[in-house]
Amino acid sequence: MRARKKKWAPAELADNPLIIRSEAERPINLRTHFNNGAPIHMEIGCGKGRFITESARRYPDINFMAVEREPAILAAAARRGLKAVQEIKAADGISPSLAFLLLDVNELAERIAPGEISRLYINFCDPWPRKKKWAKRRLTHEGFLRIYEKLGIPEVHFKTDNRLLFEFSIESLSQAKWRVRNVSLDLHADMPEDNIVTEYEEKFSAFGPIYRLEASPTHAHTI
Amino acid sequence: MRARKKKWAPAELADNPLIIRSEAERPINLRTHFNNGAPIHMEIGCGKGRFITESARRYPDINFMAVEREPAILAAAARRGLKAVQEIKAADGISPSLAFLLLDVNELAERIAPGEISRLYINFCDPWPRKKKWAKRRLTHEGFLRIYEKLGIPEVHFKTDNRLLFEFSIESLSQAKWRVRNVSLDLHADMPEDNIVTEYEEKFSAFGPIYRLEASPTHAHTI
Repeated sequence: MRARKKKWAPAELADNPLIIRSEAERPINLRTHFNNGAPIHMEIGCGKGRFITESARRYPDINFMAVEREPAILAAAARRGLKAVQEIKAADGISPSLAFLLLDVNELAERIAPGEISRLYINFCDPWPRKKKWAKRRLTHEGFLRIYEKLGIPEVHFKTDNRLLFEFSIESLSQAKWRVRNVSLDLHADMPEDNIVTEYEEKFSAFGPIYRLEASPTHAHTI
Repeated sequence: MRARKKKWAPAELADNPLIIRSEAERPINLRTHFNNGAPIHMEIGCGKGRFITESARRYPDINFMAVEREPAILAAAARRGLKAVQEIKAADGISPSLAFLLLDVNELAERIAPGEISRLYINFCDPWPRKKKWAKRRLTHEGFLRIYEKLGIPEVHFKTDNRLLFEFSIESLSQAKWRVRNVSLDLHADMPEDNIVTEYEEKFSAFGPIYRLEASPTHAHTI
């Protein structure tokens, strides 16, 4: 998505009520933002926003938020998200709880307080292939797993179509002593009813299997 | 393989010098059998014996042995193994160290002493699909992992073409707190030089990916 083509993006970022604007807050007070006692599920990297928006539609008792570091991508996802929320309200009378936050994942620990996030979604993240020195940028690298642990995130749900990234992730989770469950090496072969297909997933599942797993740090209470 | 068609099987079992005959010994004195100080690598289930025989040919400084519970299968593998060993000796002047043992894996802990086996190979074992109550028969079930731990086996090398078995195995190893490494979700896509293709693997790799991993119990010194 090319930022320079979206003249409406700055206005969207400034005005869209689904976007959390709290640049000064470290950490951000998510509880105040959502203003309810419901759990928060967070997606890292929102793409066009279909996954997080559809999640919010299906589970109105959960707060969903997506973090994204590219302003233009966030603006587009929030724009679509707001439209969807308004349509859902009008059609079904339910109020999905959906939010977007401009945030680089490297600043996760500074901006999000421990204990806030009860589930993390990583969907089709950049595999950072080829170069070994890039491994630490992969969102399932042990460095990131330690950050998720610090944030007290009890479970991560991870999907990718990238075989090498999935192999790396299994090893990385094992090394970091995380427990894995509900492993699928071909998600679409036995498609679970509750799978929400992302835009990327729809496009690329034709070319090979979608891999998926759930993982928890050893100390988490949910295992 | 049908036992009733092999009239030579009983004679093979009685006379083949590669077969360890020590029905009375519990545990079997493998050190005496091999009569050298080299490490022992063991395969559970030998099929036609190509994997263990080829391993012995490639690595003459390692003792290789296969255990198998079906007498007719063991007889056929040992017959082929003996022929191969004689040919290798004649052609290359090296002496592969190869042995076969009639043994049900459920008797592993009674027949093999702790500390004897330094690597275990599980190649294309029965996936015991469909029924949940059969899960405990899978050779990567936690029950078997505990037996491998008792035997002090520091590493298991596991291959299968069965997706559900591999998914199960990743979860089972994680649950048992084993560490995994060198995970491949398509072994033949980046075929490692040292992969020894089993008969089964050769036949079934055309129909889908071969999965592979190495695993060690947490306490093992090799991780």
